[in-house]
Amino acid sequence: MLNNFSAQWLPVLEDEMRAVLAGNEPATTAHYGMMHYHMGWVDAEFQPVTLPAGKRLRPLLCLMACQAVGGEAAQAVPAAAGLEILHNFSLVHDDIEDGDEMRRHRPTVWKLWGAPQAINAGDAMFALAFAALQRLPARGVAAERVLAALQIFTETCVALTEGQHLDMRFEQRAQVTVEEYLRMIQGKTAALIGASVAIGGLIGGAPAGADASLRGFGQSIGLAFQIQDDLLGIWGDPAVTGKAAGNDILRRKKSLPLLHGLNDKHNGAALHALLQRSDLSAADLPAVLHLLEAAGSQAYAVERMNAFYAAGLAALRETLGDRAEASLLWATAQWLMERKT
Amino acid sequence: MLNNFSAQWLPVLEDEMRAVLAGNEPATTAHYGMMHYHMGWVDAEFQPVTLPAGKRLRPLLCLMACQAVGGEAAQAVPAAAGLEILHNFSLVHDDIEDGDEMRRHRPTVWKLWGAPQAINAGDAMFALAFAALQRLPARGVAAERVLAALQIFTETCVALTEGQHLDMRFEQRAQVTVEEYLRMIQGKTAALIGASVAIGGLIGGAPAGADASLRGFGQSIGLAFQIQDDLLGIWGDPAVTGKAAGNDILRRKKSLPLLHGLNDKHNGAALHALLQRSDLSAADLPAVLHLLEAAGSQAYAVERMNAFYAAGLAALRETLGDRAEASLLWATAQWLMERKT
Repeated sequence: MLNNFSAQWLPVLEDEMRAVLAGNEPATTAHYGMMHYHMGWVDAEFQPVTLPAGKRLRPLLCLMACQAVGGEAAQAVPAAAGLEILHNFSLVHDDIEDGDEMRRHRPTVWKLWGAPQAINAGDAMFALAFAALQRLPARGVAAERVLAALQIFTETCVALTEGQHLDMRFEQRAQVTVEEYLRMIQGKTAALIGASVAIGGLIGGAPAGADASLRGFGQSIGLAFQIQDDLLGIWGDPAVTGKAAGNDILRRKKSLPLLHGLNDKHNGAALHALLQRSDLSAADLPAVLHLLEAAGSQAYAVERMNAFYAAGLAALRETLGDRAEASLLWATAQWLMERKT
Repeated sequence: MLNNFSAQWLPVLEDEMRAVLAGNEPATTAHYGMMHYHMGWVDAEFQPVTLPAGKRLRPLLCLMACQAVGGEAAQAVPAAAGLEILHNFSLVHDDIEDGDEMRRHRPTVWKLWGAPQAINAGDAMFALAFAALQRLPARGVAAERVLAALQIFTETCVALTEGQHLDMRFEQRAQVTVEEYLRMIQGKTAALIGASVAIGGLIGGAPAGADASLRGFGQSIGLAFQIQDDLLGIWGDPAVTGKAAGNDILRRKKSLPLLHGLNDKHNGAALHALLQRSDLSAADLPAVLHLLEAAGSQAYAVERMNAFYAAGLAALRETLGDRAEASLLWATAQWLMERKT
């Protein structure tokens, strides 16, 4: 069911994004070429390539939400494109801010063309994400609904920057509380997933108030999704995730389980001492995992994840009633929670 | 007349921008603090300061245009705030991209807080510029007009990135044609001034088509304004501009007069040879100025500037008819052309 939906809509979505991100004069070929490279459409010489695309989770959720409330998914395609372009804008800038040199097995935009041009190409994608939403009236979406969608979209852009701000600050702090961490991923991950569902519902004609509970569904699922990422980063099977065992521990990534352990009364100090060692290596993993086990950090993270997941499903039932469990949104939430990578 | 208008509206505009850029939680105080610093409201410790504000040219043009077509300037205040915030977002990112360490006699945001946080604070200002425009419906502006304003605003954001892209590329090229240069400043300077006037007119109730000619007025005036800047950068009186004589020549800034000279059949090669010298100094200025004189570069730039100025005034007459010459927009265009700094 999910596969059918993706197979039907992904090509439509891709066409819409290509239309929005098309340049229109030779002078700016390289400007748009950098964006097309980041989207996975061309190589570093701007020649067409075929690469495995990202999950396109956000735009698909948007289209599903539109359909779930009784709307025509086709009407929401411009919004879905805008959400995915916005997500990709944030990746371009995050890569610069974090100094990441690789993404999806290719050099990042700033690595190839330098930070100044990459910042500017990201800015263009940011603007073009708004341009995508402005294609909604041509699909017959009423002006008031377009404005309401733009309002949610803009709030989400602000939330993304707040989340990224906190993330960068936390990297420089010794201690971060679990609640501070949740506030950060609310902005950095959950807000955009919530917006994707809410905007889809809004365009589909969801009654007043329903877009708020759809947003709640998306945000809760987004938080659960991020915590699951955190769990896989420590306890995921390397053969399945494709990442080294304990990858996030060796990178000292302040994910939820690790923060829980660091804040633990009995094991926090020992964990802190271990992670501070400049020669931290795979040989230290058993000791770290032992401390996390003693602190109950994995169980704690699983519990928080499940609570967000349950809250998300409850919010969906609130909006869709009996139809909730049969909806693609429900199936997608389940699929996300079952993933192993 | 201009002074009265500024005195009346600048405080209103400032209040609107402060409301849009207000954070709402202690966790993100530094995020919003960086934006407030850039706006000139606080110092590097986020303590309130009183500094001479910028010209606020763009928002004032927006409010004047609204009034000129018979609208209430108060209705356009959110758009005026959005235009000024957008302008300031672009300055934050330009400073990073150009490596500029000082702006308005203070260290730039990236210089104080590092490029990663500065990129992200700029992104937040970008998003909040859109948030400002979304305050228009609360002022009684109809949804269709808000959407039309957002459309122009978004196109302008894209144009800004295109202009900046070209500017950065031109810095790395030996030769740039005059037409390429004009295309660049169209994006980097003229587009936003054009949008300011057009959006003001749109909100003020300008009839269909009038916003296009208002936009033409703003763009033409913007081009004239930039060329005048170029002229002052070479031939401005140091006692008035506060910059060293021939400042732009010593910085090898590819401004219109210099590009004209470099592209001159008879004097271009000699000019190129002079500017390429690694020990270029004030002692070389007479020789450079002599070559520019021989090429007729100053006269050429003045001629182009005057042509854009005249085209701008003609576009304004097209929109406002007999009322054009008595309008604040006309007076502002005149004032801009008479400035010496």
